[in-house]
Order: sequence, then C-alpha cells, then structure tokens
Amino acid sequence: MNNGKNGLQLVVVGSIGIDTIETPMARQERILGGSASYACAAASFFSGVGMVGVVGTDFPDKCRALYRHFNLDLQGLQTAPGETFRWSGVYEANMDNRRTLSTELNVFADFSPNLPEVYRDVPFLFLANISPALQERVLDQVKSPRFVLMDTMDLWINIARDDLLRVIRRVDMLTVNESEARLLTGEHGLIKAARKLLTMGPKHILVKKGEHGSILFYDDHIFLMPAFPLENVWDPTGAGDTFAGGFMGSLAAEGTVTEASIRRAMMYGSILASFGVEEFSLDRLEKLDAPSIEKRAGLFREMIRLN
Amino acid sequence: MNNGKNGLQLVVVGSIGIDTIETPMARQERILGGSASYACAAASFFSGVGMVGVVGTDFPDKCRALYRHFNLDLQGLQTAPGETFRWSGVYEANMDNRRTLSTELNVFADFSPNLPEVYRDVPFLFLANISPALQERVLDQVKSPRFVLMDTMDLWINIARDDLLRVIRRVDMLTVNESEARLLTGEHGLIKAARKLLTMGPKHILVKKGEHGSILFYDDHIFLMPAFPLENVWDPTGAGDTFAGGFMGSLAAEGTVTEASIRRAMMYGSILASFGVEEFSLDRLEKLDAPSIEKRAGLFREMIRLN
Repeated sequence: MNNGKNGLQLVVVGSIGIDTIETPMARQERILGGSASYACAAASFFSGVGMVGVVGTDFPDKCRALYRHFNLDLQGLQTAPGETFRWSGVYEANMDNRRTLSTELNVFADFSPNLPEVYRDVPFLFLANISPALQERVLDQVKSPRFVLMDTMDLWINIARDDLLRVIRRVDMLTVNESEARLLTGEHGLIKAARKLLTMGPKHILVKKGEHGSILFYDDHIFLMPAFPLENVWDPTGAGDTFAGGFMGSLAAEGTVTEASIRRAMMYGSILASFGVEEFSLDRLEKLDAPSIEKRAGLFREMIRLN
Repeated sequence: MNNGKNGLQLVVVGSIGIDTIETPMARQERILGGSASYACAAASFFSGVGMVGVVGTDFPDKCRALYRHFNLDLQGLQTAPGETFRWSGVYEANMDNRRTLSTELNVFADFSPNLPEVYRDVPFLFLANISPALQERVLDQVKSPRFVLMDTMDLWINIARDDLLRVIRRVDMLTVNESEARLLTGEHGLIKAARKLLTMGPKHILVKKGEHGSILFYDDHIFLMPAFPLENVWDPTGAGDTFAGGFMGSLAAEGTVTEASIRRAMMYGSILASFGVEEFSLDRLEKLDAPSIEKRAGLFREMIRLN
C-alpha cells in the first residue's frame, strides 16, 4: 500500500456532487458526494490518483481541501461557471432500495473533459458512473491503458444505450449490479446475464451485490467475494464507487493484472466499501489509515479462508 | 468421503413428509420431502446415518426404497397407523418467499421417538426441524454426543418458545435464517442477533442466507461461506436441510470438531445444497455420486480462494 508516492498510476473520471441524503439512521444535507469523490478517495490509499471531473464556482473550499487530504492530483478537475451537480435521495428501511428525490446536472450539462497531458499515459483508468459520452471522451484521450474499468447506471442503459454499448466494447472490465445486468441483457438469471455481457466486449464482468458481496465472471471462471459483515451501516451511498476505487487502487499499486491481483483487488474493494458506509460522505475514509485497512483485511482473510 | 462404510456416526431426527410444491418453474404433487429426508440423504454421502422419524401406513414403498438407496439406517424410522405428514406450499417469482398452503400433521401428532439402542452412543446428532419437544426427547436419549446441531423454524419460535429455549441451551450449534434470528432475539442487525444467540447456549451460530450463502459465528469469530452459484434453481425446498445434512455428514466423517473441519463441512453443506435445488425432492441427490461432489467442490474452492 502507498499513498500516492509512486506517481500517477490511475485516472478516475466520474461525477462530483453535493448530496442530500436520508437513511433510516439519519439525514445529512449538502455533503460531498459523486462517484469520482468516493472512488478517488478509496483508490488514494493504494496509488497515485488523478481526478477528472467538474465542479461549479460554489464548490466549497473545504471539499477541495479534503481532496488534497487524500493526495489526489487535481489537474483534471475543472471549475466551471455555475453550480455544482446536486443529488438528493432517500433510503428505505432495509437500505436495499433508494429513491432519487432530485437531480440537478448544473455544470455537468456542458462538461467536456480535457485530460492534462500527464494523464494520457496513465496505465489504469476507471470510468466511474457518468454519461457514456463523457466516458468515451476520456477513453479517447488515454493512449494505451493497461486496464480500463467501467461503471454505469440504469439511467444510461435506458436513455443512452447505443453510446453505452460502444464504450462497453472498449473496456477490460464492466461493473454492474444485478438489476443493471438484467436491464442490459434481458436475461433474468445472473449467470446467463454475465455470460452475455462477456460477449459484448469486456473480458471481466464484476457484479456488485451490496451487502451480499460481489461476483467476478471471466472466461468460464467465477470468483466469489463476500462483503465484510458490518454491525451498522449509516449510509450506503457510494459503496459501489468506493469498492471500485479500492479495487482499481489496489490493482494499480500491483501494476500487473493477473487472476491473483484481481482477487486481492476485490478483497481491498470490499474492505474500503465496508469502511465507507460506516459514516456519511467521505467522513470515515477521511479518518482512515493504512494500518486500519490492513487490520480489517487480516480479519477478512480469516473470515473467508477455507483452510 | 464414504457411504456408510464406517458404521453409524450420525443420527438425524426430523420430519418426513409428502409434499406438493409449486415453484415458478413447475409444480409437483405428492413428492417425498421433510427435513429428515433431505438431511439424511445429503449426509449419507459422507457417513453412516441413522434416521429417526415417523411415517404412516400410506408411506410409499418406493420412498422407503429410496432411503435404502442412500444406505440409511432405518431402525429409528417408525411406521404408525394413519397417514404420513403432508405439506404443500408455493414459491413467489424470485423464490425468496414461500407461502404454506396446507399442513397436515397426521402421524406426527402422536409421535414419540424411541431410539434404538445402537443410536444412543452416536457421536454426532442433528436435530432437524421438528417440534422442540420431540428434539428434546431425542437429545435425552443420546448418551454423550460429541456435537449436536439443531435447526428450527418460525412456527416453534412463535408457539413453543420455552421448549425451544430449553433445547437451545443444550446444543453445540444452532442454525437459523435471518428472520428466525431476529424473531428469536428481537435484534434486527444480524451480528447483534448472532451475539445474543451465542449467550443462549450454543458455541456456534450458523446463519443460512439461501442464495447468498451462510455465516458462522463462534466466540468473536465470523466465517463467511458464499453459495455455489447456479444457473437454474428448480425447487429451493429442503435447501437448508440439505446444507445441514452435508455439513453434519462431513463433520461426522472427519470425526473431530475443529475450526478447520467446521469450515470444510460448511463448504460441503453448500455443495450438497446446490445439487439439491437443481431438481425437486431428492431427485438430484438420488443420481449424485462422490466424484460429482468432489468435482463441484474443486470448482467451488477455486471460486472462493483469495490467493
């Protein structure tokens, strides 16, 4: 594990937002969110991370300071006239379902990512949840990435399917949840859906199952990773992004993509996500350090080993 | 793995029934079911099993022949005047929920298990789902079992809580699903509920999560076992009993109860359950053999290993 000491190994593009969130445990207004925020913070515990995104002139200094706390490279972070992206949502009692109350695109409506020169040679790229057109624009600018992970959401599957399929064809790994896998493929069964996704371009399909863990499909192989069991979940927002960030950070730190490095990366993704949901926004990740990650990883290894 | 060659290491008491089941895939009438049927069949692939239960004079010869196919010791199987226990139920679309349509206790109403002498020295005992009073009567007759596993259901928690708590105090491991854990303890969170159950007698709490696997709690430790991923589930009836049967069979075959033997037993429980749900009743287990179990176990080890 390192904290950005080895230079820029990973670039993340995604949303940056100001969220208002209500869970059965509490409600918080105007907190830092967005897929890029969660993913970059999680990845920063393992590798140097460059952040690509846009904020408005209203973006709070303390949020920018928090990004610096995580040693993020912010050359790819644009500030545009107008307001930062806003999202608000509410979780049902069991936290399995959430309802979006409002979405304001604001500065994201006209965003066109333009990568700093130093980002273009990066070996690891994470296209976090954002419109596929923007993901594609970033992908076009990175010269020869070793490994590209892509996330998406039901919205893009419904309103931008053609764009989405074009990007999916070009990435190494696609991450989806179970309902997105169904929506994309029309297959109800998870194994059938994953097999179909594997014919659409990516060599790896990573299915996120929330508190039930994650499943990786590649060739004819399946790898099962349970979730780290938690006593209290305060806010599941960003758990998938945090998982993916930890995953890509770990993979970038190892530098090589092998079955073993992918399995370890999934383990670290689970661990980072388990910390992330213990508090709202990046609050828990802000206080997190490498020894705490390794301690929980040690506990987790004990929980999942067979012999 | 053996097939009853090492004599009687395990006794199972539970229900034996004639089921009518409707799943989203199909409907089958008057098929062999009951917790003892599933558990004994699964355990038989690993160790010698004695079956304790009752059937009516209407119990079909072909069902008794099937028990013999699994090499079950049937000295503990009583035949009483009257009809065999009957159950019918229907599963909802996702198979997560099932509704009981009817239950006829029949010969179980007056059943009083009386163990054959040779069963009383058995080292491993599984009290499968049946009224706690009957579980207790069996427990009273086994002299000094090395390891006792106990299952139950919401019905007994609701109508026979005192009996149930008395039996729970005397067993080594209790297995419950998530809703039973909540109902028994009043705790919504699974970890809190399991901790509370650990204060009620058993040294181990095994929580079954169906397609999401199982979790074992013991002392301050947690062990996570995913479920073997399946393309098609035809009938989830008896999956928990099949898991528990495979678990106890494996443990009885090893003969010693250690952390490692318990983890291996959970793995075999998962494997046996995954076969069981591929067809109705004991249809898949009837065709199953040791090489097929070991082949799937090998695949599964690959799916869950970290390194």
